[in-house]
Formats: sequence, C-alpha cells, structure tokens
Amino acid sequence: MQQLLIVAHGSRREASNQEVRLLGQQVATQLQLASEQVQVAFLELTTPSVATALNQCFQGGVNQVTVLPYFLSSGNHVVKDLPQEIAAVQENWPDKHIKLLPHIGAIEGMVHLIASAYRNN
Amino acid sequence: MQQLLIVAHGSRREASNQEVRLLGQQVATQLQLASEQVQVAFLELTTPSVATALNQCFQGGVNQVTVLPYFLSSGNHVVKDLPQEIAAVQENWPDKHIKLLPHIGAIEGMVHLIASAYRNN
Repeated sequence: MQQLLIVAHGSRREASNQEVRLLGQQVATQLQLASEQVQVAFLELTTPSVATALNQCFQGGVNQVTVLPYFLSSGNHVVKDLPQEIAAVQENWPDKHIKLLPHIGAIEGMVHLIASAYRNN
Repeated sequence: MQQLLIVAHGSRREASNQEVRLLGQQVATQLQLASEQVQVAFLELTTPSVATALNQCFQGGVNQVTVLPYFLSSGNHVVKDLPQEIAAVQENWPDKHIKLLPHIGAIEGMVHLIASAYRNN
C-alpha cells in the first residue's frame, strides 16, 4: 500500500495545524488515494509525532512510507531533527522502507509556484 | 516597474537564507524579470528587513510592490507581524501600493506541488 507522510513543524496556533491537516486531505484527493494513505505529522508543539505516525503506518501493514518534509528551507529541523527521528523508527522496523524526499522548498516546482502566484495576482 | 518581494522568516543558518535568495533569482528568471525586480526580505535573524527592502524599492521609483509571504502556514508571522511591518512602511509612503498575497502554503498550486513530489519520487 502506498503511503505519504507530510511532516510539518507544528504551531501553537491550532488553526495553522489544521491548515496542514486539510492540505493532507486535499493531496490525497489530488493523488486519488484513500484519506488514510496521506498522513500528517509534526516535529513540535502538536501531535501526532513522526514516530507515532510511522509506527501506526507499519503496525497497519504498510511496507513503505514516503516522507515529505513540509519545510521551506533546509534548517536544522530538515537537516538533523527529522532524519534522526526517522532513523530511530527505522531501527525498530528494519524490514520497512522509509523514503525521505527533499523538503518542499527544494522541490523543482516551487519556483514555478511562486512565479504563478505573482503572475495571477 | 513591476516588483515582487518574497518575505521569508530568516534563519540562523546562513545556507538557509542563501537558499531563499537563490530562489528569488530563479523566480526572476522564470518570470523574465530583471533580477532587481524580485527581491527577498526576512522577518528575523538576517537582513534585509521588510521595511528596508520596501523603502529601497520606493526610493528607487517603484510604485507598486507585490509581497509574497514565503511561509507554509498562517502563524503569527503571517497573520500579525508581516501586515504590521507593511502598514508601518505604508504610512511613510501613502502614494505607493503594497499588495500582500496569501502565504505560499495557501496558494492553490501547493496541493499539486506536493502531489507531484510524491508521484515523481
């Protein structure tokens, strides 16, 4: 079963977290996946954590999870914290595959997205 | 003259700030604008500030600046801090136009960008 996990920073402002959860649902629709095949996790300030989300996926029988860091730049959260959290989970699930994508700010289409936002304003 | 100002949070990690500056240059290329027509400013931790960048634009004769908040969710920086900084500059330049776009995480194409990142991995 395909599985995407979008990992965001997390905010004290619950509306911000809800915004990310809603985005996850919209991505599932766009990808024509079941809603549970696109999960959202957070590094700080709210739940679920990355470990909780990954463990739930693997306990549910998922064999491969693709992790998208929903971060705009390669700060410590992207470079250190998230890879460490993933490595810790991987130790407990040696037969499962966790694929870490580049952070969203480094995805090639970002330049085009910004250009479109400007053009269409 | 057209002018886009991309406003990011700013990081202690200079490589992250450089990543945003490079993105600005790539957006200028994509939009076929001169490099000075796409500027980058930061709310914290590095320079230029939003006020400095806007003042420079207006001093240089630009009449309208489109501001894109390069933030993924509508936290305090997007909801309060940036609008306040813009309002303060606007007071000093009553005849200039500052157009504030939605933050990048709320731009319609974001769902598609994430879906593409997953599909192409």
